[in-house]
Amino acid sequence: MIRSELLTGVLPVAPTIFTADEELDLPGLRRVCDYLVDAGVAGICILANYSEQFSLSDEERRAVLQTTMEQVAGRVPVCVTTSHFSARMAADRCREAAERGADLVMMMPPFFGASLRVGAPGVIDYFERVADGLQIPIMIQDAPMSPTALPAELIVELATKIAGIRYAKIEVPQTAAKIAALSRYPDVLPGIFDGEEAVTLIPDLQSGAVGTMSSVLAVRELTSIMAHWTAGGQDRAEQEWEALLPLLHYENRQCGLAAAKAVLAAGGVIADGRTRTPYPQLAPATRDTLISMARKRDLFALRWAA
Amino acid sequence: MIRSELLTGVLPVAPTIFTADEELDLPGLRRVCDYLVDAGVAGICILANYSEQFSLSDEERRAVLQTTMEQVAGRVPVCVTTSHFSARMAADRCREAAERGADLVMMMPPFFGASLRVGAPGVIDYFERVADGLQIPIMIQDAPMSPTALPAELIVELATKIAGIRYAKIEVPQTAAKIAALSRYPDVLPGIFDGEEAVTLIPDLQSGAVGTMSSVLAVRELTSIMAHWTAGGQDRAEQEWEALLPLLHYENRQCGLAAAKAVLAAGGVIADGRTRTPYPQLAPATRDTLISMARKRDLFALRWAA
Repeated sequence: MIRSELLTGVLPVAPTIFTADEELDLPGLRRVCDYLVDAGVAGICILANYSEQFSLSDEERRAVLQTTMEQVAGRVPVCVTTSHFSARMAADRCREAAERGADLVMMMPPFFGASLRVGAPGVIDYFERVADGLQIPIMIQDAPMSPTALPAELIVELATKIAGIRYAKIEVPQTAAKIAALSRYPDVLPGIFDGEEAVTLIPDLQSGAVGTMSSVLAVRELTSIMAHWTAGGQDRAEQEWEALLPLLHYENRQCGLAAAKAVLAAGGVIADGRTRTPYPQLAPATRDTLISMARKRDLFALRWAA
Repeated sequence: MIRSELLTGVLPVAPTIFTADEELDLPGLRRVCDYLVDAGVAGICILANYSEQFSLSDEERRAVLQTTMEQVAGRVPVCVTTSHFSARMAADRCREAAERGADLVMMMPPFFGASLRVGAPGVIDYFERVADGLQIPIMIQDAPMSPTALPAELIVELATKIAGIRYAKIEVPQTAAKIAALSRYPDVLPGIFDGEEAVTLIPDLQSGAVGTMSSVLAVRELTSIMAHWTAGGQDRAEQEWEALLPLLHYENRQCGLAAAKAVLAAGGVIADGRTRTPYPQLAPATRDTLISMARKRDLFALRWAA
């Protein structure tokens, strides 16, 4: 039996916080959790690519999971990214997340590097193995970074064959069209999200998305947009989103995953906004423009700790 | 001070052995080590891509490292692959390998998936951090699976700036031309190897390679070829290699990393030749052709355990 109340709304990716010498900053992560709960998010996703999961050891992943579950303490649902090339390893990570109290797991299909990809029958077998015995639902992550392709037909087949797959996060070019194709199967795949810093949010909601997996940069503002949208205030939602879009677009196109940390550090939520080497730090001028755009919009992230 | 006797010859990648239910088979790995030492290899490389390193947990990597060092017990040098996107994690893995007695580490440049690549200054900074304080030499692995490119000029710059970098393994299209370009810098980069199952060995040796990082499939045979080559018997080396090439080519193009294990299992060196899901098992017909080609050449791998 899979727990099945549908999660909708803003489910941001919490960045992994590091100290100035690149050690895990777990107290910083706790502050991020509190900031997110206060911002009114629908849930929190950890250990995703925006969390620099590719820069962590297995032991550090466990520390992030345990710290997050402790700090969130059931106040909102937690989604844990458990991607690994090996089905066995991914299944172990899912089991551990569920045992720690996670509400949801997210996974990319299996791949390694630019060229080690897996065909459709292998992808189906992979998710069947991972879902076997798992008591919490699965979100499939469809990201362009994976050389293993997930055409809409394969996502529908996966969700049809595997009861645990209830969510898909779509963050590829022409997201809205893919979401529209997937939203024709609400019985098997009710939980369609977009990603990519919510930079395509309104077209994706119009196509059937029920939420967004943004960064933590503008979560209070995105929560307001989602609230208007679901209350029938589509025009107001669109207006607010269009006002926010230049900032989200600057994050998405000019900053990458260094953006949210830079704003959290500027707002005093965390002590240091650095990424782990070799992921590039923000150039000072880029950071200044980002913070200036965030201040202009009086972001909650800059006010929360003040 | 880097230990610096140059390693040359056949330095094969040991596969990671699994049981029928995909657990680590460490006794199987020990048998592979003994087989390789008896075959006369110049050294053994572990935890490479041909070892399915992308399917292992950190804890399993440690078990493979420890078991190999114990079993080899100094009989031949051991090269440990320590690639990780994070410079800090890669440095930790290198330090652990050195502490356990490894003679050499091998690393790809940092990347994740098909699209997260690092520019040249980031790659230089990455290797400088990893090499800092490391007492054993580094082999740079130039593999097409990495979206982070390593042009010949960058490899030379790395080897010039970083004393610990003494080796490069080149396994990209047009390997011989790249090896020829690199072999103009023997003072900083004396240890050029090829890879890819030795499928380009003779042209690469003609271009200046000093050894090959093959699979374990035909190591006794490759050792004989290398011995002829270094003793001035180039014609004999070429003749033996051309006779072996159809088998190596079948391995490289039709089988991938499932090939060596299939032959080891057929020869009774290990109990099970399976790869970890979702890496595909060999189709039965492909396996049969491979084994038949190996038997026709009376491979040492099929005779050792008999």
